[in-house]
Amino acid sequence: MKEIKVNSKKSYSVFITNDVNLLRGLIDTYKLHSLFILTDENVYNLYGKFLDKLFPNILGLKVIKPGEKNKNINTIMDIYDSLIEKNADKKTTLVAFGGGVVGDIAGFIASTYMRGIKLIHVPTTLMAQCDSSIGGKNGFDYKGYKNIIGSFYQPEFVFSNINFLKTLDDRQYLNGLAEIIKYAIVCDINLLNYINQNKKALSERESDKLFHIVYQCSKIKAKIIEEDEFDLNKRQILNFGHTVGHAIESYFNFEILHGEAVAIGMITEAYMAMKLKYIDEKHFNKIVELISYFNLPTKIKVDDIELLFSIMHKDKKKTGEKLKFVLPYDLGHAIITTDLKENFIFDALKYCLGG
Amino acid sequence: MKEIKVNSKKSYSVFITNDVNLLRGLIDTYKLHSLFILTDENVYNLYGKFLDKLFPNILGLKVIKPGEKNKNINTIMDIYDSLIEKNADKKTTLVAFGGGVVGDIAGFIASTYMRGIKLIHVPTTLMAQCDSSIGGKNGFDYKGYKNIIGSFYQPEFVFSNINFLKTLDDRQYLNGLAEIIKYAIVCDINLLNYINQNKKALSERESDKLFHIVYQCSKIKAKIIEEDEFDLNKRQILNFGHTVGHAIESYFNFEILHGEAVAIGMITEAYMAMKLKYIDEKHFNKIVELISYFNLPTKIKVDDIELLFSIMHKDKKKTGEKLKFVLPYDLGHAIITTDLKENFIFDALKYCLGG
Repeated sequence: MKEIKVNSKKSYSVFITNDVNLLRGLIDTYKLHSLFILTDENVYNLYGKFLDKLFPNILGLKVIKPGEKNKNINTIMDIYDSLIEKNADKKTTLVAFGGGVVGDIAGFIASTYMRGIKLIHVPTTLMAQCDSSIGGKNGFDYKGYKNIIGSFYQPEFVFSNINFLKTLDDRQYLNGLAEIIKYAIVCDINLLNYINQNKKALSERESDKLFHIVYQCSKIKAKIIEEDEFDLNKRQILNFGHTVGHAIESYFNFEILHGEAVAIGMITEAYMAMKLKYIDEKHFNKIVELISYFNLPTKIKVDDIELLFSIMHKDKKKTGEKLKFVLPYDLGHAIITTDLKENFIFDALKYCLGG
Repeated sequence: MKEIKVNSKKSYSVFITNDVNLLRGLIDTYKLHSLFILTDENVYNLYGKFLDKLFPNILGLKVIKPGEKNKNINTIMDIYDSLIEKNADKKTTLVAFGGGVVGDIAGFIASTYMRGIKLIHVPTTLMAQCDSSIGGKNGFDYKGYKNIIGSFYQPEFVFSNINFLKTLDDRQYLNGLAEIIKYAIVCDINLLNYINQNKKALSERESDKLFHIVYQCSKIKAKIIEEDEFDLNKRQILNFGHTVGHAIESYFNFEILHGEAVAIGMITEAYMAMKLKYIDEKHFNKIVELISYFNLPTKIKVDDIELLFSIMHKDKKKTGEKLKFVLPYDLGHAIITTDLKENFIFDALKYCLGG
């Protein structure tokens, strides 16, 4: 088991391991009692029996419907109801056992139930292990806006068990790989080279390769959180692919997975970077090629680009009137800009998504 | 204008003044733009025109229905809707212009809309100026539990204009006095003496007397917050009268005002303190006498004491199975205890509230 310290205002550790049984010991070490587990139907079908065995005496278990579509106020209220019903109190620890949606919801619940209860993240997807479980962002979607209601709330610890990744279906696994490619492109040329050199092994989910990328991405994320916990500047670099990606998700009413939308968003935004000569054509092609290799979508046909554009404007990352974009600058680096002209953005959207 | 610094994790100032026009200058000094004002119907009827004049260019104004009964999820969602409709973004500042309910709701909204926007408190009631606007606690009621959903979220500043207190109706004014008597009994014998010596002037709301008590209570609250922002120990001293008071509010379905319930709660809990010899009978009578002087209720007939008792058990301040009480210990001091026997509590409730 490896440990990464996240030195945010409240410090905590991310544990990365191949041995899921270490979780029980950690919970004892941290003196956590009165556990309330939140998970979703997909994860419960796979790990329900395992949970019963690992945690014979818990306060409660709530199984929600899976998917971004259920990351809404109804699900939130339903969980509050369950906590109240079980007499959960300030000593209760909420365990987020699942992917990004479970983690986002659990984080919001933990930060608001009785003004805050303890939280641990046990991410079961690649996306959650590498990205969403670290850094304390949480929230739910409302009126078509992703995470428009949410907070920053750090857990007691994060427990990433690599073996969970073996049971993901291909689509969910690739969904996570998109975020890892994102890290590599904007933060770490070595990681990008590693992914390129181990494409096949990563497709086949070899344990040591998975461990390496989860560990590297967690380290990158932890470092960024330390510098900018509240997403005021540096952390925004992780929004590469997301300005366009979020709008695509919303446009297609969340029928498309987050990582898939981000993959298309990365290509669109990399295209903008190429047009601005921030990266050259060779680099752009390399990005497209890598995304294609993992069978992630490289484009999607958007009939109403104007609508997409207006959704993007409403995206919560907007600052005043100008849209904010993260553009790769050489590979392994990026810049954050609000200076793109509307025409320029519109042309890029049209070229990449206009069909 | 006097200024009190609150040195919580995020430091901010409480300004106490007789000149409401200073608010405009503070907003400029703090470089706050894109104001969204939250208030209630009562306050708006009194100060709507004033708000229009003081803030000619705001992003939005939302007037909610007054009272604890409306501190619920429906009101919360309705405000999110208004913020989205007005395109409120991360640069928006939410202005809580009203009493405790407006402040609690605004705090929750500000802490969760887009993972946190700026907040200023402009408390218009005595209760809000002396207590609820300082310290960052917020929340709303759900399933009969007060503030069961909420967070800690500190404002940019608090602006307490004493003149607002002149327009309160008597019931609201006395509601606030109950909290001030609470401060005096458990924290500050000098304040208790001051109130006793200036009972008549306080009844008549003389400006300098109001200024003094708002200033003293704000200072006490600021000091407590500095020592215990997240309500883990010391801050709980301010729950004197609240363990019983919250249960009474809930039992009577919030038909009774918070301060009124706290007044009855203080007498019941002071009675317990007397039974335990923490205070003598003379002190107990002094407390009853002071509360009576201001026409606050000293008792209320509870037909089903068992039900009241079970509501208290469900109150969020419970720790594990034992109820937590703040009991006066001499005057001007208090202790926090979870050691009271159920029979003892039940007998006190029956004696004070059984009719």
